[in-house]
Formats: sequence, structure tokens, C-alpha cells
Amino acid sequence: MSQITGPAPAPAPAPASASASGAAFPRLGWVDDLVLPALQAAVAALPATERRAAGYHRGWCEADGTPLVAASGRGKTVRPALALLSAVAVGGSPQSALPGAVAVELVHDFTLLHDDVMDGDALRRHRPAVWSAFGTASAVLTGDALLVAAMREVAHSPAEFAAVAVQELVRALLDLVEGQSHDVAFEQTPEVSVARYLAMAEGKTGSLMGCACALGGVLAGADSGRVRGLREFGRRLGVAFQCADDVMGIWGRAARSGKPVGADLAARKKSLPVVAALAGSCSAAERLRSLYRSPHPLDAQEVQLAGELVEKAGGRQAAEEEARRQMSAALRALSHARPTADAYRQLQEIASMMIRRDS
Amino acid sequence: MSQITGPAPAPAPAPASASASGAAFPRLGWVDDLVLPALQAAVAALPATERRAAGYHRGWCEADGTPLVAASGRGKTVRPALALLSAVAVGGSPQSALPGAVAVELVHDFTLLHDDVMDGDALRRHRPAVWSAFGTASAVLTGDALLVAAMREVAHSPAEFAAVAVQELVRALLDLVEGQSHDVAFEQTPEVSVARYLAMAEGKTGSLMGCACALGGVLAGADSGRVRGLREFGRRLGVAFQCADDVMGIWGRAARSGKPVGADLAARKKSLPVVAALAGSCSAAERLRSLYRSPHPLDAQEVQLAGELVEKAGGRQAAEEEARRQMSAALRALSHARPTADAYRQLQEIASMMIRRDS
Repeated sequence: MSQITGPAPAPAPAPASASASGAAFPRLGWVDDLVLPALQAAVAALPATERRAAGYHRGWCEADGTPLVAASGRGKTVRPALALLSAVAVGGSPQSALPGAVAVELVHDFTLLHDDVMDGDALRRHRPAVWSAFGTASAVLTGDALLVAAMREVAHSPAEFAAVAVQELVRALLDLVEGQSHDVAFEQTPEVSVARYLAMAEGKTGSLMGCACALGGVLAGADSGRVRGLREFGRRLGVAFQCADDVMGIWGRAARSGKPVGADLAARKKSLPVVAALAGSCSAAERLRSLYRSPHPLDAQEVQLAGELVEKAGGRQAAEEEARRQMSAALRALSHARPTADAYRQLQEIASMMIRRDS
Repeated sequence: MSQITGPAPAPAPAPASASASGAAFPRLGWVDDLVLPALQAAVAALPATERRAAGYHRGWCEADGTPLVAASGRGKTVRPALALLSAVAVGGSPQSALPGAVAVELVHDFTLLHDDVMDGDALRRHRPAVWSAFGTASAVLTGDALLVAAMREVAHSPAEFAAVAVQELVRALLDLVEGQSHDVAFEQTPEVSVARYLAMAEGKTGSLMGCACALGGVLAGADSGRVRGLREFGRRLGVAFQCADDVMGIWGRAARSGKPVGADLAARKKSLPVVAALAGSCSAAERLRSLYRSPHPLDAQEVQLAGELVEKAGGRQAAEEEARRQMSAALRALSHARPTADAYRQLQEIASMMIRRDS
């Protein structure tokens, strides 16, 4: 899907503190250098049991607590990168956005832990999910602990920004809960419209990326107009990412997501390509509807067929087009925040990478 | 356990808005009049699925959404009452403390929903627990939603107090998570000291009551010294309540807790009477230790025996004495907050009622 943002932008000059990293987002090593120590400190402050479960989830240790030396997860901290670069975009320092960067990453982990409990997904990042390795009770409490730790970060950000920063986080959390609620409800809903899907994706994925960008602006002292532009950029980017992620969930490689290929289809998940295909009137759409109505679990052959029917019914194309539309809207919103040219280029580069691969 | 606070205080004059209510705390009807509409508004703002689960949990509706007309839960909102009266104690209006009162009640519900998932307790307030009626996914997400709704309340309290109020809530939540973590860990710990038990109880029960009182002070504009006195009052009161609750958990009536008598013992729960008894050196303590070491579940006869052994080994007496000590410390701390005489008497009355019956 490299065509979504047009030609790849010229390589942006990395900040002076940049460090080479061979990970997913090679140019984001400098983000890790700033964020990881603060993130580790936040996790270290958790009670012992939750500290271990959270460290395991992040790939810092094995389930028994044995530290993992490999810099697992380096260059994949997209949300913190958005926060830091958003601060830079409005003339602040990356450091000023640290409480926001740490908070959104902690919230992201909170959602992953609880979502895996809710969905019963046993795998996360190629390893047993926390609930699977430590039990449901541990996953629930560790998620709670991470959410509270996130609140702590913003509540203790500089006094002149703390109140607005907390409100920004709360707003995102309300939308996150609503998005997750709709996502769960979709499983019981025979027909989901594309509009309802997009509203769900904005809550579930867009709200936190929007919050990351907005917090960067707030903590850098930007006015509410620029913060609004940054928030909208993050929200649209999040929806674009979710659209692209849904495509990868059907036609991507297992190595990327850490989940088996076709799992979304096997679970009859109402991802965007499926929602768009089910809304069609061609014969492929009709056959897909009858496959999705069948009460028994889909076998491997049916999963393969479902993927073909979704593509024939235009589901893939619709999702790819939606991702492009959302990306354009994101970049328009970003320009309303009047970012520095350099920050704009870097944010555009991250955005472009995000819809090409997982974060 | 009516002896714990000495003779019952003279009935305090209720505020002008008082309304008679035949519920658990008959003199707290005026609290419900103030708090319930705000609480209902907060729950009404949740997504539909979580709104229903939360309403069911509070006794406002059946699991299918049918409204329950009975004023279930009236006069039982102890934490909001502490918040409102704490505001009055430092010269504020009860109304000023409303965001705090609603927040602590929402947090309380959040902990109940998640704790029941973690403990696997199928009954709550004489009905199936939310996880049991709606599924684990729903209980997890509804708990998350209630926690976020609580944050929303304090984040949008008057601007001059919001930042400090949020910090007060975050502090309590960090302690709550730590207390719950220790409570869960105790089940795997052969020997728990009374000191560790009390630290757990302060986190799990004291922190939120302390937060209720502190928020009342903060939102009424009290200085940090008076807020500290109120917070400490609530924390000690919470520990006293937990000690008394533990005694009721073994020797109380099932009708009170909505859970079967002896359930704590059957589950080998390390409540204070048990912890204190297990630390003893008499023969009853020795027999109790061997009963608690046995790998098989305790039958009804063994539960009965365990209760007798805990009492013989001095566990009941130790818990009752601790409750008295904590209550004295609570009232000393309250006096440091320099409350109005009338508010002191009302808070003392609530405290006294709380350790006589469930909240």
C-alpha cells in the first residue's frame, strides 16, 4: 500500500540525538532513547506482580522475570513519536512532551491487555498474551495499573498544562471505551455500515493517536487552534492506520502481526474490507453474506474463499481508498496546526511508514 | 461490634434537604438526593452496553434493562457521604464536593466489577455479579468505563481545584491497585503478617475513603493541612471498616453481605482474624494452620471448625481491637482537620454506623 501517500518523502534529517536502530522504524531510535527510560521508570513503579506482567508484555523479560537483552520493540513506539514530534512541530522540545508520550504508550498497553482478555486472543506479538501467560486476573489488574500509571504521568506534568493535558487524555479514554464497546457489539450485529465502522475505528484507534499529537502540542504550550489541528491529524492518521491494518489482517503476512493469517476472517471479524464487501450487491457479496451467516466455524478452505470473495466484492479496494482519504484528511489537518516544515516532513514520513507496516 | 466507637453519638441534625429513607443509612437520604442524579448522569453517558451493565450492578435495572423502581442502594452511598460532609466540615457546601463524591462512587463500582472478575466471585449484592450475568468481557470494559468516567468528573471540576483533585484521585488509584495486588498475592503466600495485612487494607479500602474525604476538602478550597487531616481520617476509617468487615465475613449474617456465610473461610481468604490467628502459638492456631495447609476444599464442617479455631486463637478479638485502634486514630486525624462541630458529629456517626454494618 505504498501508494497511499504518494511518492515516499525525501529522508528527513533526524534530530541530533538520533541513534541507529535496526528495528521497524529505523529512524525513530532517538524516540526510544528519550521515551524508554521514562517508560521503564513508570513500569518499575508498579507493584511487583504487575511490573513483571507489564515487562513481559513489552518484551523486556520472560514470563518468569528473566530479562531479555534484545532491544525488542525498539523503533516501534509510534504513539510516543507522534507526541514528541508534535511538540517539535509547534516550536517545543521533544522533552516537553515526555509525560504525554509515556502516558499514551501506557494507555496503548492497557488497551492491548484488556482487549486480549475480551477477545480471548491467546497470542500477542508472537508470544502468549498476558492473560494466557499469567491468567485473566493478572491481565485485568495489570491493565488497570497501566491506565492509572498513564494518568499519573499527565497529572504530574508541569502545573500550567496539567489540567488541560488530563482533560485531553480523559477525552481520548472516553472515546476509546466507546470504540471498544462498538467493536465488541459488532460481533453480534448482522449488518455494520461503513460509517459505523469508521466511527468505531476513530474511537478505538484514532482517539489515542489524536491524543498523542494533542498532548505534544498542549505540553509545548501551543494554543487551542494548533492543538486541534494536531489532534485531528492524529485521529485521521489512526483511522487510516486501522484501514490499512485491516487489509493486512486479511492479506498480510503472519510475521507482521504475530497472529495467524486469516484469523480475522476465521473469527468473522467485521473489519473494513469485510464490512464494505458485505454491503455490496454483486454475487460475491451474496456468497460472502451466506458464508458469514453459517453457524459453524470457518475451516481453512472457507477462510481462503472468504478472502477471495471480500476482494471480488470490492472490500479490499474500498478499504485502501478509505485509508488514502483519511491520510489526505490527516495531512490537511496537520497543516492547519502550522507545523515547522521539518516536523511536517517527519510526521508525514511516520504516517507513511505506519500504513505500510505494523506499529 | 457497636462497642467499637463507644456509646452511640446523639442524633445529629440532618441538613435541611434531608429526606426520610428506610435504607441502610436512614440519615443519609439527603446524600442520595444530591448524588444520585449526578451519578445517573455519569452512567447514562456510557456506551449502551456498559450503561446497562453498570445500571444492573447498581440495582437500577435488571440484566435485560428493565428498570427497577425500588430505591435500591439508597442510603448506602457511604463514600459520597464522606466527600460531601468533608466539604461541609471545612466550611464548604455539600454541592461543591459533588464531582468528588460521584468520582469515588464510580471508582468503587469499578473496583467491585474488576475484583469480582479476579476473584471469580459469582455473587454481588445478592445477585449474579456483572461478569456472571454479562460475561467477563463486559465486566472488564464496564469497569474500565466507570474508571474513566470517574476521572472525567474530577478533571472537569472547577478549574482552580481540578489539577489537585486529579492528583488526589490518582494517588488513591495507585494505592488501590497496590492493595488489590497484595490481596491477590496473599492467596499464594503461606504467612501474611498483621502489618502486611493492614498495609493491604489501607491500599484496598482506606485509600478510596481517604480520597473521598480529601476531595471533599480540596473542592471546598481547604488548605493542604486540613486536607491531610481529612485524608488520614478516611484512610484510618477505611481500615477500621475492613477489619470490622472481615469479622462479619466470618461471623456475620449472609443477608448483610449478599455472600454465603463462611465463604471467606471456605476460600481460605487471609482476612484479618485468620491472619492474626495463624500468627498465634496456641494449639488452636496450630490446628488452624494444618487445616489451611490442606490441599482439598474445606467442607461445611471444616468451615465451622475453622471459624471456631480462629476465635479460640484470638483472631476475632485481635481484629475487633484493631478496628477500635484504627477508629480512634481516624477521629484524632479528623480533629486535626479542624472540622465544624456539627460535621464532626455527623462524620463520627457515619463512621460508627459503617463498622456496624455493610456499605
